Amino acid sequence: MVYTGKDIKNIVSEIIEKKKNEGGLKSLYFVGCGGSLGALYPAKTFMEKEATCMRSAWINSNEFVHNTPNDFGKNSILLLACHKGNTPETIAAAKLGKEKGASVIILTWLEESEIIEFGDYIVKYTFDASPDHLAGDIDYAGEKTMCALYVAVEAVNQTEGYKNYDKFYEGAARITTIIRNAREQVKDRALAFAKEYKNDDMIYTMGSGAGYGAAYMESICIFMEMQWINSASIHTGEYFHGPFEVTDANRPFVIQVSEGSTRALDERCLKFLKKYAKRIEILDAKELGLSTIDATVIDYFNHSLFNNVYPIYNHALAEERKHPLTTRRYMWKVEY
Amino acid sequence: MVYTGKDIKNIVSEIIEKKKNEGGLKSLYFVGCGGSLGALYPAKTFMEKEATCMRSAWINSNEFVHNTPNDFGKNSILLLACHKGNTPETIAAAKLGKEKGASVIILTWLEESEIIEFGDYIVKYTFDASPDHLAGDIDYAGEKTMCALYVAVEAVNQTEGYKNYDKFYEGAARITTIIRNAREQVKDRALAFAKEYKNDDMIYTMGSGAGYGAAYMESICIFMEMQWINSASIHTGEYFHGPFEVTDANRPFVIQVSEGSTRALDERCLKFLKKYAKRIEILDAKELGLSTIDATVIDYFNHSLFNNVYPIYNHALAEERKHPLTTRRYMWKVEY
Repeated sequence: MVYTGKDIKNIVSEIIEKKKNEGGLKSLYFVGCGGSLGALYPAKTFMEKEATCMRSAWINSNEFVHNTPNDFGKNSILLLACHKGNTPETIAAAKLGKEKGASVIILTWLEESEIIEFGDYIVKYTFDASPDHLAGDIDYAGEKTMCALYVAVEAVNQTEGYKNYDKFYEGAARITTIIRNAREQVKDRALAFAKEYKNDDMIYTMGSGAGYGAAYMESICIFMEMQWINSASIHTGEYFHGPFEVTDANRPFVIQVSEGSTRALDERCLKFLKKYAKRIEILDAKELGLSTIDATVIDYFNHSLFNNVYPIYNHALAEERKHPLTTRRYMWKVEY
Repeated sequence: MVYTGKDIKNIVSEIIEKKKNEGGLKSLYFVGCGGSLGALYPAKTFMEKEATCMRSAWINSNEFVHNTPNDFGKNSILLLACHKGNTPETIAAAKLGKEKGASVIILTWLEESEIIEFGDYIVKYTFDASPDHLAGDIDYAGEKTMCALYVAVEAVNQTEGYKNYDKFYEGAARITTIIRNAREQVKDRALAFAKEYKNDDMIYTMGSGAGYGAAYMESICIFMEMQWINSASIHTGEYFHGPFEVTDANRPFVIQVSEGSTRALDERCLKFLKKYAKRIEILDAKELGLSTIDATVIDYFNHSLFNNVYPIYNHALAEERKHPLTTRRYMWKVEY
């Protein structure tokens, strides 16, 4: 049986019911590798902020397998993301979850793969599989980042209660339209970005809050992996405590200005960048239309917005650099 | 009253006793900025691995103040690190801690500063204040990273129990000798490193487990802040899921090979780097003598070892580049 994001409420109910005689649901682990780990970041921040009893952590699959938390077991949900179901480290994490008696939820794009035999629940997420993810015709509320959030929201709401539960799902119902409009809005800007930065060999990304995950993914999956451009993602709260000393008029920064509780951190960096950096690309969630989502829950939607606006930039950059996003020199090609 | 690392056992006892009639100690927050946040990383990993009930999180001060976890309050310890006690965002976090009724422990180097009025317990850590931290004559078991670990170890042991408690303190008793020997051991290597990399404008650091904090600090505080060299810290579990595509024979990587549970992750990256990267500097905790510490607790000491071996490299690099570690263009000089 393969589920979708809409089934997550019932999946979590079933898990909680099952664990009732085993001491209850006590921890929720978000585990994956690279972009699949980054996509779980908003759910991690949700648990840190909104849960008051349940433990949680956000851990790379290989670290999780080699350095497993002591409480991981029958009172845990293990939430894995694995795009094609063939990442060996994440398969190993799923196996470990089965052995330890955890409830294993696997977010994946393929219905059939190596990993699915080790999952209690296989959730197929929506994914824009068109070249360079340009089609933009999917239901963004069904993507992996949103599915991970649903697991967190349901786990908290069904155990200790979550007062902004309805507002959260109202936000989810709006995200697809917001993203589609935002993607249209940045088209010209993305072309200009590509022309301006095509010869740069180092580009920083910046972000905060739940949206930091999108800055991390753009840095490691696009600039480093798909364009071979050196990169680092800098948390805007950390910028003034070391990283800002590399700032100069030549070095490019892509800065996400989030909507919600950490906007002040991003705006402070932006003000500084405008004075000393010059070559900056600003993704402002307010300008991109996120603000129709209620203020109590808006934080958690920044990631989906930024992460789905980036492909417009990425495609333009790849075209301008004549370096297709699919080009690899090591991944799937050499032993590692 | 100013305490030291040796008082932390009693401090935690007192806090737990005080909270008994208020629902008990339920969460432990590690909060700081830049290097002060990085130094708390091993304690974060300790809580994730060893605690089974207590919640914890590791959060930048400004993010913490703007996006405060809902459960933060009278059942929490807020553990802050603030070197000179004058970081505005960390002072704001301490104030918030007081307002919310949390027990605020401040790790600091100065006995008198702005922050101390907002702390319930002021713990003065040891710090090598000699130029470029070269003297090496301090008690490394009293440093901020170790003090943060003591808070975590005591919080877990005094509530739910920690079976490797004695082994942990035996390790702590050995760390100073290990670090001093390791610093001697790398002296020549550090000079060669400085000569080799003095003209590079981008250097990656890599690490895993508790030691990842040291890789983060070297990247943001030394390469970026003190040498204006572009940098990023890459988790060795994440390397093969994006970042490794930037690897080539010219790009330098400083890789920490930890002792303990995540060593396999580091070794896998090292093998790849040796084949494709060529310009690599290896800090191997085993070779540097960490292995006399018991295997059950060794993970948590990697950070202190690496973080205190780096100054030998950093001094040599700064000399070779004629760029003193104290040089800043923005920090303390312009408005931000």
